[in-house]
Parts: sequence; C-alpha cells; structure tokens
Amino acid sequence: MKHLILIRHGQSLWNLENRFTGWTDVELSDKGREEARDAGRKLLEAGIKPDFCFTSYLRRAIHTLQIVAATLERDWVPVVKDWHLNERHYGALQGLNKSETANKFGEKQVHEWRRGFDERPPLLSRDDERFPGNDERYSRLTDDELPLSESLHDTIERVRCCWEEKIVPALNYNDEVMVVAHGNSLRALLMMLCHLNQTEIQEVELPTGTPLVIEVDDRINVVRKYYL
Amino acid sequence: MKHLILIRHGQSLWNLENRFTGWTDVELSDKGREEARDAGRKLLEAGIKPDFCFTSYLRRAIHTLQIVAATLERDWVPVVKDWHLNERHYGALQGLNKSETANKFGEKQVHEWRRGFDERPPLLSRDDERFPGNDERYSRLTDDELPLSESLHDTIERVRCCWEEKIVPALNYNDEVMVVAHGNSLRALLMMLCHLNQTEIQEVELPTGTPLVIEVDDRINVVRKYYL
Repeated sequence: MKHLILIRHGQSLWNLENRFTGWTDVELSDKGREEARDAGRKLLEAGIKPDFCFTSYLRRAIHTLQIVAATLERDWVPVVKDWHLNERHYGALQGLNKSETANKFGEKQVHEWRRGFDERPPLLSRDDERFPGNDERYSRLTDDELPLSESLHDTIERVRCCWEEKIVPALNYNDEVMVVAHGNSLRALLMMLCHLNQTEIQEVELPTGTPLVIEVDDRINVVRKYYL
Repeated sequence: MKHLILIRHGQSLWNLENRFTGWTDVELSDKGREEARDAGRKLLEAGIKPDFCFTSYLRRAIHTLQIVAATLERDWVPVVKDWHLNERHYGALQGLNKSETANKFGEKQVHEWRRGFDERPPLLSRDDERFPGNDERYSRLTDDELPLSESLHDTIERVRCCWEEKIVPALNYNDEVMVVAHGNSLRALLMMLCHLNQTEIQEVELPTGTPLVIEVDDRINVVRKYYL
C-alpha cells in the first residue's frame, strides 16, 4: 500500500489579519510554524516517512514543508516546487480585508466568489503590481498560464497538470509522497483522487497543519483516508 | 556573463567540537546560522539572484541554503539535493576528536589523511552503524557508490558526476547557479572549473559561509572569481 500525505500550510500572517491572500507571498505566523512542527511530530508518531515531496512557489507552504521535513530528520528528501500547486488566485481581491470586502460588495457576492465553482473574483489589470507577470518567479509562464483571477474550476485545471505529469509518476516510483500546499490546490487534488463532484468539493474544508493520509493501491485508487 | 556561486556551509556543532564529520549529519550551530544569513545579505547587496541551486544530502548544507534563499526572498528557486555533493567520507575517523586522533595515530599520519590526494582514512566495516549503506537516504546507491572511506581523489571523481550531468546543464539554462556544499566537494568543483593540479587544489581553503562568485562565459570558462 502507498500513502499520499496532504498538508495545508500552517497559519500565515494574513490569515491572522483576515485578508484575501491567494498568490501573495505571505510568511507563516509563529502559530503557523508551531502547527508545522506539530504536523511533523504526528507523522513521526505514525511512522510515516515521506520519500518524495511537492510544494508550491509560496513560502508559507515551502516553510511548512521545511519544518515538517526537519522534524522528521528527512531534510534530504527531494522536493519539487511547482507554481501549479499555488493557492487559487484571488484577482483584485488579493490584499483586501475580507469583512471590508463583504461590506463593499455584499455578503452574497463575496460568498459566491469564495464558494462558487466557476465564479472569478474581479480581474487584475496587467499593470497591477499584484499581476504574477510582474513577479520574476513566474517569468517562464506563458500568457495563457498567468492568471488575472481564478475560479475554483480554473485552479483545479492547473493543479491537474501537476497531478498527472508529476505527482502520479512520483507515486509510481515512491511509497510515501507528501504534498504541502494550500486550501484550494489540495481541494483540487482531493477532487481528482476521490472523484468528487462540484457540490462535494465545495463542502471539503481542510484544517491547517493537519496531515491527511490517503492510502492508495498500485493503481492509485483510494483505499481509505484519515487525518493524523 | 553567467555566475556560479559556491558557498561552504556555516559552522556546524562538530566543527565546534573539533571532530571529523564527513557524512555524519550534524546540525548547524547558532554561529553557522548567522554565517548563512550573512552570506544571504552579501548576495543581496551584490544584486546576485540565484535562479537554480544545488546542495548535498547533509543538513548543515541544506539548512545553510534554506537560510540564504529565505534572506534573498527566493525560497521558490528550484533546489536539487545530490549525495555526490556530500563532504568527503572520512571512514572510521568520523566522529573522532581531531586532537585525540593525532595523539593516537601521530600528527604526520593524520596530516596525510587530511591533506594527501590519494590517502584514504581507515575504512569502515559494512556492519558499522556509520556505514552509509545502513542509512535510508543512501538506499538507492549501488555497492560501488557506497564509500567505506574516501581520499580527496575519490571525492573529486564522484563530484565530477554531478558537475557534468547536472551543474553544467543547469548553467546552460540559467544565468545564476548556486552550490551550497562542503569544503572538499567545493574544492573538487574548483579543481574542475579552474583546471587546478593536485598540489594547487590541496592549498585551496574555502572559508565557511562566504559566497565565492565565479564569472564564467557561455562555454563555462572562468573569467574571474572573487569572494563577497
């Protein structure tokens, strides 16, 4: 039996400030770092030893992974960083306070942006400093790949590239593959793995810093899943 | 013009205790972490932005790289970890205090082990817990690749694999490649890059936590080199 371990990054500074984060590269809070150490200790107790890891281009996920790996004394394990695993891009909402946004656009609209499947928040313009095309780390992406804003559906489609081209092959060659990423990119992975429909995926809420262990067979069918 | 940046990891706990380290996976000391931050600040001031990184399987090098990358706010840069970049394996001397070893075997013998080109320190036996074949991270190495002890010559030959198969291709595709590794594996890289002979390489001593910037042309000929 193989394991795929999914971990949502620990609390970030903007989770604390209740702001839309998306692709903004915010640091972990002290509590977030503690959550990461705790996730590492839980894996240690469960005897789960990741032998290949994935994370996003965002430091709240990268640092969570580094802390988990250090706690496991497995700093040497290969790590692939892939922008396809980034959080959903929140467009022009990124950086805004969530309650202020609700006051401005109405609770109903904000709820649709946050929980709808195909709704995209307001688009960024390309000259906005928040547009990923203005960030060196995304300089090798094509115009089609650079988001101005994303629906959950958009996020799922780009996570699919990483799943099919990188994570599935890694699961074929390794027994314990770990992905440390974000609420919506992990949702996307769960949707593909567990064949969830649009309604089911919108109800999934992953807690931060809590390893979700998914046992899969050799054909990557889910046998069972549980939180540590 | 391209840059290859070499950094020797910061001080480790065993540097402090004056013990032969080799492949032992020792932590950085507080001073070592400060040296790593300082290396990051120097690169920042020099405007050097690594876009591809290499390190060894040993955490003193991996953590040095993580601290440098975080200081540069470039945590997202790809990192390849390769055991070929490990420190020279010190065989049965690993873990021993350097002055006690000199008392036991004589200053002259220890000097030859440390500074000779072809001398191997006493070999480990395969049932020694220090033998890398007993460490999970080296479980995919062949019997020929697993050292019982290494001369500087042996180290150079294995570093050559990583140089030719990974670092040179990375330099072809990237302008700023950084390698964070160990005294002897970096010596090996310098020998190949600068075409040093056996006598010249034995005189090279890289300071810890100090970026050595090597400017190379498109054919990877060294144009100039300087410490930051």
